[in-house]
Amino acid sequence: MNTDRVGQIAVIFVSRRTGADEEGYRAASARMDDLAARQPGYCGIDAVRGSDGVGITVSYWSDDAAARAWRDQAEHAATRDQGRERWYDWYTLTVATVTRGYAWTRNWA
Amino acid sequence: MNTDRVGQIAVIFVSRRTGADEEGYRAASARMDDLAARQPGYCGIDAVRGSDGVGITVSYWSDDAAARAWRDQAEHAATRDQGRERWYDWYTLTVATVTRGYAWTRNWA
Repeated sequence: MNTDRVGQIAVIFVSRRTGADEEGYRAASARMDDLAARQPGYCGIDAVRGSDGVGITVSYWSDDAAARAWRDQAEHAATRDQGRERWYDWYTLTVATVTRGYAWTRNWA
Repeated sequence: MNTDRVGQIAVIFVSRRTGADEEGYRAASARMDDLAARQPGYCGIDAVRGSDGVGITVSYWSDDAAARAWRDQAEHAATRDQGRERWYDWYTLTVATVTRGYAWTRNWA
């Protein structure tokens, strides 16, 4: 049982891309990944986007103050504004406190 | 501000497909979606899989007892065994309690 994330904050971002400005979106997305990883309290990220433009990104933070500090980071806030102007049809953001977890990996024997 | 999910349990399942038995996987996945939706306390699901085989599924439950009841549902448990035998290289499962949330939708004015 992997309990490494117990007590961490999971920020679940579900979105659909407009399809507009793919180049600008990719650059901003890579920049946000870099910036987030340098924020205090950053604990990792899982991100997937499907062929229909819907994506889920889950970022993990040591505590709620760290998650809020990333939300309030100036360049991140400015990039969110661009996201609403250009890149997303819709999104939902759900913040949750981790209570338990498991991990499994195939043993390629 | 969308606070509909505050207090719900988010079950975050991140996995990578082996690529084996695509047909069996798809049938089981659809069956699990149907079964989950009929479980008491089911509050919805978000799921995405990318072209690299990594997927994220977040299911939402009214409370922890409902999330555990789905975990313990017999057909679901048997299908998880098949997942470890055939369909997944690895997965992580993270359970978290929702504390806040937001939603935004483009106004196509």
